Amino acid sequence: MARTLCMTRRTAGAIQKRPGAVIHLAPFLPNASLMKFCSNCGHAVVLRVPEGDNRPRSVCDSCGTIHYVNPRNVVGTIPVWEDKILICKRAIEPRYGFWTLPAGFMEIGETTAQAASRETLEEAGARVEVGELFSMLNVPHVHQVHLFYLARLLDLDVAPGEESLEVKLVDEADVPWDDLAFPTVIHTLRCFFADRAAGRIADSSFRLHTLDIDKPMRPLTSRATVTP
Amino acid sequence: MARTLCMTRRTAGAIQKRPGAVIHLAPFLPNASLMKFCSNCGHAVVLRVPEGDNRPRSVCDSCGTIHYVNPRNVVGTIPVWEDKILICKRAIEPRYGFWTLPAGFMEIGETTAQAASRETLEEAGARVEVGELFSMLNVPHVHQVHLFYLARLLDLDVAPGEESLEVKLVDEADVPWDDLAFPTVIHTLRCFFADRAAGRIADSSFRLHTLDIDKPMRPLTSRATVTP
Repeated sequence: MARTLCMTRRTAGAIQKRPGAVIHLAPFLPNASLMKFCSNCGHAVVLRVPEGDNRPRSVCDSCGTIHYVNPRNVVGTIPVWEDKILICKRAIEPRYGFWTLPAGFMEIGETTAQAASRETLEEAGARVEVGELFSMLNVPHVHQVHLFYLARLLDLDVAPGEESLEVKLVDEADVPWDDLAFPTVIHTLRCFFADRAAGRIADSSFRLHTLDIDKPMRPLTSRATVTP
Repeated sequence: MARTLCMTRRTAGAIQKRPGAVIHLAPFLPNASLMKFCSNCGHAVVLRVPEGDNRPRSVCDSCGTIHYVNPRNVVGTIPVWEDKILICKRAIEPRYGFWTLPAGFMEIGETTAQAASRETLEEAGARVEVGELFSMLNVPHVHQVHLFYLARLLDLDVAPGEESLEVKLVDEADVPWDDLAFPTVIHTLRCFFADRAAGRIADSSFRLHTLDIDKPMRPLTSRATVTP
């Protein structure tokens, strides 16, 4: 539904600020999205609750544009080959050197399944047949929703992409649990192996797994074990 | 996973442009997101494929910022009271005067279920207990993912919010199919009634419903019937 859904009045919500008041701090906006200048006209913006809204937004008083910031989707796969899954060692921060499932930001113009397939190709050089959505995990403190699809590896011609140091197929017994990059990956893999052991992957009787991760991760470069 | 995922190299993808070439048209960016000035420093931006990327981005040659645009989530509920569901008549464009399920853009700092609950309160004045995710529908031509949750209305104290002209409880027989606002709502409701008739809502045996809607909607103010 379109842009106007966000531009019209909201009468309820967790954040209630007096419309029109200029806000000098921005606890509700991610740092990376803090806007100083209007992307439409180049004038300085102010942070305030627009008339009829209930959240602070970056507003341009020169051209009138209201700039919205919304969460983003990180989409990936659980690439399966016989009894093994394919994992990638990260070549970038955060969590450089830790292992993960192939995943990345969904781009405009693509579907979630297309994004999952593309990220798997880009990060692991792997061609997959994307199956059902397996997990959806909210990570509100970083303004992200993580989605992981079941996927079948089409061949073993895999290779690390520019964001990976290494890719490898592992049995459940060889998953480097203490060196996994993100709680969302840990939870997804735990659910996957539990469902597989119970036969729920084979007969597609598993339920979509959901989880809200409400605490920040440990320091990104530490080797501390993270738990979902 | 963080911003850097998008800033590093991508070696495969549907769109391959020579890195560094300035692109003067922006078929890959939604109009509303076309950036003219850098939101960090106020200088004019150019549209080009950054080094190590494979998609055109708005890039600032003054401060070096690369500006990304990603799809957004529209999240809502199917609010159920006994045999009826709650629907809203839209007071805003697009599709002013058409009926919809309560839904809207997910905001930063909240989970998908929190967004669904908040939008239901804002658009229909309705308090709900949010249940399982029921449908996930990709609408790539408007850069959106629509998510609808099952929800149980907690009371009948409902009222149209500022974005609704009217709210009402309807039986399946009274759903205004020809006057529903969006294909995603039509598909979600069809699946809901089919699952309910088959007993799959009562025993939670339904599967997550997914659909990719790959064609633009009919003119937004027409009364033409839209189909999923």
